[in-house]
Amino acid sequence: MNIAVIGRGLIGGSLEKAARRAGHSAAVFRGRAPSPDVSGFDVVFVALPHSAIVPAVRALAAGGTLKDGAAVVDICGVKRTICEELARVADGKSWRFVGGHPMAGKEKTGYENSCEDLFDGASMILTPYQDTPPETIAALESLFADMGFARTVKTTPERHDAIIAFTSQLCHVLSNAYVREPLAAEHDGFSAGSFRDLSRVGFPDPETWTELFIANSDALLAVLDRYAARLDVFRKALREKDAALVKAELSAAKPQTNETQGGKQ
Amino acid sequence: MNIAVIGRGLIGGSLEKAARRAGHSAAVFRGRAPSPDVSGFDVVFVALPHSAIVPAVRALAAGGTLKDGAAVVDICGVKRTICEELARVADGKSWRFVGGHPMAGKEKTGYENSCEDLFDGASMILTPYQDTPPETIAALESLFADMGFARTVKTTPERHDAIIAFTSQLCHVLSNAYVREPLAAEHDGFSAGSFRDLSRVGFPDPETWTELFIANSDALLAVLDRYAARLDVFRKALREKDAALVKAELSAAKPQTNETQGGKQ
Repeated sequence: MNIAVIGRGLIGGSLEKAARRAGHSAAVFRGRAPSPDVSGFDVVFVALPHSAIVPAVRALAAGGTLKDGAAVVDICGVKRTICEELARVADGKSWRFVGGHPMAGKEKTGYENSCEDLFDGASMILTPYQDTPPETIAALESLFADMGFARTVKTTPERHDAIIAFTSQLCHVLSNAYVREPLAAEHDGFSAGSFRDLSRVGFPDPETWTELFIANSDALLAVLDRYAARLDVFRKALREKDAALVKAELSAAKPQTNETQGGKQ
Repeated sequence: MNIAVIGRGLIGGSLEKAARRAGHSAAVFRGRAPSPDVSGFDVVFVALPHSAIVPAVRALAAGGTLKDGAAVVDICGVKRTICEELARVADGKSWRFVGGHPMAGKEKTGYENSCEDLFDGASMILTPYQDTPPETIAALESLFADMGFARTVKTTPERHDAIIAFTSQLCHVLSNAYVREPLAAEHDGFSAGSFRDLSRVGFPDPETWTELFIANSDALLAVLDRYAARLDVFRKALREKDAALVKAELSAAKPQTNETQGGKQ
């Protein structure tokens, strides 16, 4: 397949390299205007920040070079805002827009940190419309498997945004609030794995993540409010030195998978 | 050196194995009464849960087999409660008590999961008294280096408890509150590294960690209250869709070390 990637960041570069590793041809274009000629490409990935995606797809549509049956796939971490608007842009066209979100990343951003194995073993989420042709989805699923993804999960933009608010966005809020504790300055010599884990995503790029949080504020606020309510019970229990309540809270956690069991340090 | 370990758990077993790997002789005893004869040992590690440590050292003292100059070292994650009481027990004796806390662990507990390399590269914290002989501390530091520890940090029980409340205990509270979100049941296919990191210590043994949290409730409550106040600002910003405030909050995090920079997923 011929793959175009718009956006020269970590994800864009990694999409390019993973497609090439799999034997596909791939070209990367800058996200800025003018919109590139994409007439030769079967799949066009739009690997740009949240606020740049809709304008970029509008420009592609206006450019008129998208070939019949081409799939335009974005990689944004929120999907409702993107998909609602691009459903209208793609309506009645001979090409398709399919919302996407690769569940992979790393601490370092930028094309220079992109790599062909970034998606190996990861999940790719797609949020197709009801009228997205099955052959478009099948072709994308085959491509993602070639690129190293372990599987493709199909869901709605609404369900995606609700779950991602918890599995990704909330983590960044919690980690950011964690690393800002003044005692963090004294952690050296007093910390091990749990400090490292809680700190890892504490410094997300403010510009990028503010856009994502605001675009998904209702879903993120819902999980954050529930989370704060659970912390409030711990705070009450500690204030009152209520060991039974602390123990009941800790005991309320039920492992979902074997991966996440146990805990020391 | 001749090393005795009282307690056949993950830490006790690992202390034994790490000491043996270094060429020292080591014996492990059960934590239950009657107290063992430790007359042949230079160092006695008390690797028992918080509530069992003081009784175990009292029993050792009453047994009268501790040799002159022997060092008794506990491994508990809180130090004020232990050290205050054992300072009195050891007062005027020919052996020494030194509070200790190895900054290492793993998700799986029990002797069967103990290993000789558990402490490799980790920090060992000691909370000696002002009158602890320098040669006792030097001998312990040398032993810890032999056992794989990267360094020994000396501090007061008060400072230990304040920092550990943040670097370890708070992580367990935050992770436990995280894994209890109902959406956790739907994470499969929608999660990557940040979910895994935030979940890892979410299922601490309720008995063990309730003891630790209650013994250090003032210090833990202090960091937890400050943490909740930072979350409250995020909640306000999301409720009001205040992008400037979200961005200001995210930007307020300043990396302490290169290890903890960046963040995606």
